[in-house]
Amino acid sequence: MLPVRYLNNDEIKELLSVEETIVVMEDLFKDLSDCQMPPKVYLDIPNGDFRAMPAVVKNTAGIKWCGVHLNEGRTKRKVNIFAKVIINDVATGKLLLLMDAEALTAIRTAAVTGLATKYISGGSSEVASFIGCGNQTKYQIEAILNVRDIKLIKLYDLDITQAEKMAEHFDNTVVCDSVKDCVEDADIITSLTPSRVPFLEYGWLKENSHINAVGADAEGKREMRPSILTGVGVVVYDEWEQCSHSGEIQYLDEVNSNAKLSSLEDIVSHKKIDLINGNGITMFDATGLAIEDVAAARCVYEKL
Amino acid sequence: MLPVRYLNNDEIKELLSVEETIVVMEDLFKDLSDCQMPPKVYLDIPNGDFRAMPAVVKNTAGIKWCGVHLNEGRTKRKVNIFAKVIINDVATGKLLLLMDAEALTAIRTAAVTGLATKYISGGSSEVASFIGCGNQTKYQIEAILNVRDIKLIKLYDLDITQAEKMAEHFDNTVVCDSVKDCVEDADIITSLTPSRVPFLEYGWLKENSHINAVGADAEGKREMRPSILTGVGVVVYDEWEQCSHSGEIQYLDEVNSNAKLSSLEDIVSHKKIDLINGNGITMFDATGLAIEDVAAARCVYEKL
Repeated sequence: MLPVRYLNNDEIKELLSVEETIVVMEDLFKDLSDCQMPPKVYLDIPNGDFRAMPAVVKNTAGIKWCGVHLNEGRTKRKVNIFAKVIINDVATGKLLLLMDAEALTAIRTAAVTGLATKYISGGSSEVASFIGCGNQTKYQIEAILNVRDIKLIKLYDLDITQAEKMAEHFDNTVVCDSVKDCVEDADIITSLTPSRVPFLEYGWLKENSHINAVGADAEGKREMRPSILTGVGVVVYDEWEQCSHSGEIQYLDEVNSNAKLSSLEDIVSHKKIDLINGNGITMFDATGLAIEDVAAARCVYEKL
Repeated sequence: MLPVRYLNNDEIKELLSVEETIVVMEDLFKDLSDCQMPPKVYLDIPNGDFRAMPAVVKNTAGIKWCGVHLNEGRTKRKVNIFAKVIINDVATGKLLLLMDAEALTAIRTAAVTGLATKYISGGSSEVASFIGCGNQTKYQIEAILNVRDIKLIKLYDLDITQAEKMAEHFDNTVVCDSVKDCVEDADIITSLTPSRVPFLEYGWLKENSHINAVGADAEGKREMRPSILTGVGVVVYDEWEQCSHSGEIQYLDEVNSNAKLSSLEDIVSHKKIDLINGNGITMFDATGLAIEDVAAARCVYEKL
């Protein structure tokens, strides 16, 4: 009955690799002038929210409709996420594709982390740490492996069995007992938790390391302690409005920060690439953008 | 592959009658306290726009994603419209249904016109006029027939063959040569054009008649000449923010109006029903609301 093809998560995983999605995101962030992205619209419900994320990327218009629900399970809190993406041709309005967007979201988020890491982290980075071993982490690890020659992967999760499971997917992994252990000799730290209590401390970090702050994507969420916001030399945000409301930098006014700020677009298009070097520890603040979903979905469409 | 049922326009028409949708809309507008509806989000493109319309109605969250494209055809301008609706359960986030929403939109729009006409127009209304005989008009006529004992249906369209075609669907119809002819003895006038040039004149109208101003639903669209906005005694809007930006009342500041204003919710819940009588010509300003789509889609879901 459906007038176009509907792709489920398994089909998306089959069609879309992290590696090529990094290229798609690089093309996207090189020039955002042909894009439109109004602020995400949130509908609050008692145990979570629904979000509408419309965007136009060049010849493609689309929307992600997703929801986050916290349900109290028997033993612990469980987060249910659903997401669908619809894309249309801009010129004609023609519907192109409908799809499950949980896998799409995980892959495009990881790809953007990879892109930021490629442009921001030190070229000789060898140790990569990951805090939080949920559904997205496998793709995030793949993304980092894709852009840097990583010799050691360090994993941490509040639930150690999650970290152990994740370790099975990759070579050269070590599971850590604490966040401090996990990050202290890391060149690249990717933080992937839904925390509302900041836990990462500046004093634990290696000189000139790079942090990907992926967890905080809504008001009240944070992973970086004030010492990080005070100490980092450079902060690169995916989108200013969204990050200043939902990302780690929503807390920037609370500290006395001298961090230099830049958009990912300016870094990728080389407008501000110079500020990366010699300014100490760097942080990429990722909140996840509707244009990323539309660009990734368009890539899927073109592969069919 | 699709995890839930997908309904096309023909199936929606089969499942959802105008008559029962009027009841659904009456239930909805009686009490909007359990609803959430952020402003529609517009993405402008060279030949039209895309719109995201998310909403929560009680236990259902949903979004309409639609587009309006003006394409220059061989002989005249052609409007292409597409619309999809997705609904989810609020408590669990579970996806309930995906559907084509062109028919759903036409039916719910007509039902709201019917609801407004039931509460606002004179009880002995016998002559109903319709300006513009496009896709929605058939449902709009059905809606009026449903709430008033109509003896004569008068039709007008710039393209007279459209009006003649519409006339074939109903008894007791007359096709008119001009807007003036069409409206001058009408008790109820329903205006359904995409006009940006106002054409309906107050001097043509019968005393105590009722206008349903359905056409204007975006900035720049208007059907009512200033004399109407000056002359009408009562204006009922579907939603204040949306109407004051997109409906006929976006032009209210241009005239010296003494019209009494009320929301459809206040009229249907009897909070302001008294202002209808004795205040001359009435107008319902309809822009179409996301809550109407979600409520209608939920009704479809419950019938499956």
